[in-house]
Amino acid sequence: MTNRTVAQLLSDDITLQEVEIKGWVRTFRANRFIALNDGSTINNIQCVVDFENTDEAILKRITTGAAVSIKGELVESQGKGQKVEIQVNSIEILGDSDPEEYPIQPKKHTFEFLRENAHLRTRTSTFSAVMRLRSSLSFAIHKYFTENGFYNMHTPIITGSDAEGAGETFRVTTLDAKKPSLTEEAEVDYKEDFFGKETNLTVSGQLEAETYAMSLGKVYTFGPTFRAENSNTTRHLAEFWMIEPEVAFMDLDGNMDLAEDFMKSVLNYVLEHNREDLEFLDKRLADEEKKLPQAQRSPMNLIDKIKFVVDNNFMRVSYTEAIDILRKSKPNKKKKFNYIIEEWGADLQSEHERYLVEKHFKCPVILFDYPANIKAFYMRLNEDGKTVRAMDILFPGIGEMVGGSQREERLEVLKEKMKALDIPEEELWWYLDLRKFGTAVHSGFGLGFERLVMFATGMSNIRDVIPYPRTPQNAEF
Amino acid sequence: MTNRTVAQLLSDDITLQEVEIKGWVRTFRANRFIALNDGSTINNIQCVVDFENTDEAILKRITTGAAVSIKGELVESQGKGQKVEIQVNSIEILGDSDPEEYPIQPKKHTFEFLRENAHLRTRTSTFSAVMRLRSSLSFAIHKYFTENGFYNMHTPIITGSDAEGAGETFRVTTLDAKKPSLTEEAEVDYKEDFFGKETNLTVSGQLEAETYAMSLGKVYTFGPTFRAENSNTTRHLAEFWMIEPEVAFMDLDGNMDLAEDFMKSVLNYVLEHNREDLEFLDKRLADEEKKLPQAQRSPMNLIDKIKFVVDNNFMRVSYTEAIDILRKSKPNKKKKFNYIIEEWGADLQSEHERYLVEKHFKCPVILFDYPANIKAFYMRLNEDGKTVRAMDILFPGIGEMVGGSQREERLEVLKEKMKALDIPEEELWWYLDLRKFGTAVHSGFGLGFERLVMFATGMSNIRDVIPYPRTPQNAEF
Repeated sequence: MTNRTVAQLLSDDITLQEVEIKGWVRTFRANRFIALNDGSTINNIQCVVDFENTDEAILKRITTGAAVSIKGELVESQGKGQKVEIQVNSIEILGDSDPEEYPIQPKKHTFEFLRENAHLRTRTSTFSAVMRLRSSLSFAIHKYFTENGFYNMHTPIITGSDAEGAGETFRVTTLDAKKPSLTEEAEVDYKEDFFGKETNLTVSGQLEAETYAMSLGKVYTFGPTFRAENSNTTRHLAEFWMIEPEVAFMDLDGNMDLAEDFMKSVLNYVLEHNREDLEFLDKRLADEEKKLPQAQRSPMNLIDKIKFVVDNNFMRVSYTEAIDILRKSKPNKKKKFNYIIEEWGADLQSEHERYLVEKHFKCPVILFDYPANIKAFYMRLNEDGKTVRAMDILFPGIGEMVGGSQREERLEVLKEKMKALDIPEEELWWYLDLRKFGTAVHSGFGLGFERLVMFATGMSNIRDVIPYPRTPQNAEF
Repeated sequence: MTNRTVAQLLSDDITLQEVEIKGWVRTFRANRFIALNDGSTINNIQCVVDFENTDEAILKRITTGAAVSIKGELVESQGKGQKVEIQVNSIEILGDSDPEEYPIQPKKHTFEFLRENAHLRTRTSTFSAVMRLRSSLSFAIHKYFTENGFYNMHTPIITGSDAEGAGETFRVTTLDAKKPSLTEEAEVDYKEDFFGKETNLTVSGQLEAETYAMSLGKVYTFGPTFRAENSNTTRHLAEFWMIEPEVAFMDLDGNMDLAEDFMKSVLNYVLEHNREDLEFLDKRLADEEKKLPQAQRSPMNLIDKIKFVVDNNFMRVSYTEAIDILRKSKPNKKKKFNYIIEEWGADLQSEHERYLVEKHFKCPVILFDYPANIKAFYMRLNEDGKTVRAMDILFPGIGEMVGGSQREERLEVLKEKMKALDIPEEELWWYLDLRKFGTAVHSGFGLGFERLVMFATGMSNIRDVIPYPRTPQNAEF
């Protein structure tokens, strides 16, 4: 007697053998056909109960969500839709699921309802497929970097500075919430806090990753990052996972090559390894979009869209070229943009990015060489003195997927930039040390993992691609 | 002209070809021999400078820590210690490293000094080897679980409850530190906090992992966890990484099998993939231990110790048997233990675990079936009503490496346990739901990643196996 998963049984050629399988009932039809799932695949295995010879009390307990253990014979299926099925010899109810109480009934639930039941939502086909894809993308990322000579690095989650200035941070503390220790000047005495100073949750591991790139050569981080921004949108989370490679002796061109190759490789991995989940999600998205007016539907279905990215070159366009295109564009001339592009130096809004990617180029776009004053302090200043070697990769339907740059490796230029932005040198003494001792050209980028999962699954709300989303007023589970 | 890493050049058979290489100078000897490293391997490549035809000003700038770009011919080495070397045709100094200022000189530095310069310590052989091994172990973990049908799951870092009661937690907040919002009763008004309630950094992803195991079957987490304990020891961090697999339909025996197979597999991976780093660390440890009296030296060297774990069965011993062994042991009878074991029910201290592992069994030991009252509420109660299906895996020199259990899957038993420990049901309503709807036997364990890295590298201070350690009064970098 073998004990295998549903995935193994369904891909098995051998029939007429005794098998044992444990899983959860998805549906029970005609007092006879159990659709059983154990999470190993999007597909259920059909288990045929000999209802005439099965205790009535047992049959009543075969309900949606119940955990069961089944012994029987794996045989060719007589019915449609599956090659094999199990002729049940014995069934044991491991855990009941009262149909009056169980929230996940075999009917259409709204995603909002499933978010409230996030602990049970992977019992649906959609969310199990999404989370298997998330896992697969995660592995593809580790595999890509490992095979390309990168070292994984765990940068700190609790940090002593918000030097990158990437936005509002969460304070991490063990001080008394109501009556914190105070100094003689009646200020909060962070010397009494756990780490002896004010600490926050990290917004990025980049600066620390640079320290390792400048010794180990090629490194990457893959960890949680945090923003305490009060954004209640379908694209923002307070806690999200980020991938940040950093490479010594690589310039911005190399950085673009790396990012493009990386994105194609991980997306190709799921095309190869998660075909059934993708086909399910592809169909789901198509069904959902049928309700929309033609103009709002995606121009490509999910799998074609992923293949398109894998098979085509990303368009590389300088910020200056992009501004020219936008200035001459219809929506700019007709004042359809909310923010009209008037001159060089304007920060691009989501509407402009979408126009470039979805209307003008119709493919992923890498924008590079942005104005220095709209980008972070650590980006390398170009010879023109006004642009920096930054790049953003924009994806259709998602917008910014990757943000990266060549880093300013010249000590004096970096110091001046920090001074202009009031970043104290003492806070980043170790970061400056990298420019003092054996400095070299280096580059890297950051990829928001959830954005990638959204792209690969066709899910439109970021809360639906992470197990337990953290957003303003919500830290349930 | 090819642009390859030091690792690639050193493993290359082809000589007499033009190469270009970038890296950092480890040493420069006799105005002639550069030992160049780029992080790709523990080994340096020797670059031979034609000093008679090289500008004196350039020669002076070839100092330890300087970044250089070298073009030359890869030839068979005349000297000892390397197969190939580079005959330098041209050298460019990319980044200087002033010998008067650069902290990482080619001499013996204390680990304490290197901790203060953690941003530069991977420029030493020891720390680059440690961090390459850390990365390799990380990949081995993802690989093992992926190949065995597990899904990676990102459990939340910010959580709304400290239900596991695993110790002191860090508060995560955006309330004003000095004057937080107060309720009418003059208590801190967490409704005004970012998440609308009090939130902390996670101590474990287990409870959330259980929700996914009970739908996807086999899952694992690999993420940061936190303890706000004021422990200044060589074995504790405030921020550390944990691996937590969780499997449906698996009992404690299966859990022990999984943990043992997993440990052996990831350790075997580094034996196969990180031979040179291990050999370096093996020698380092032996050199360090030469200073110790014979009795304090390890009975096995590093590589033999790892091989021993890979090749031998872990000893499985019940808590009750262990108590018997300890009660009858010499150190107990002679009152050499700080805590004398008198009766069944005593919590085991580190000294007892070490005795069992290092003196009595001389191999990794799995202790199981602990008294219920010294273990967590979610562990499955045995039929005897006084022990639970818990297990700890103890390693020589490290102590507890893994802690796991079969989980209490019976709703009523779990509720009673929570009641006895004053854990409110409302806080864990979703955890209880798993027992209401399709409950089943399930198990899992937690592995402290840094403990594993310590074991595999022979490092004795946990602060030396994580890039930027967080400990009381220390959150530098």
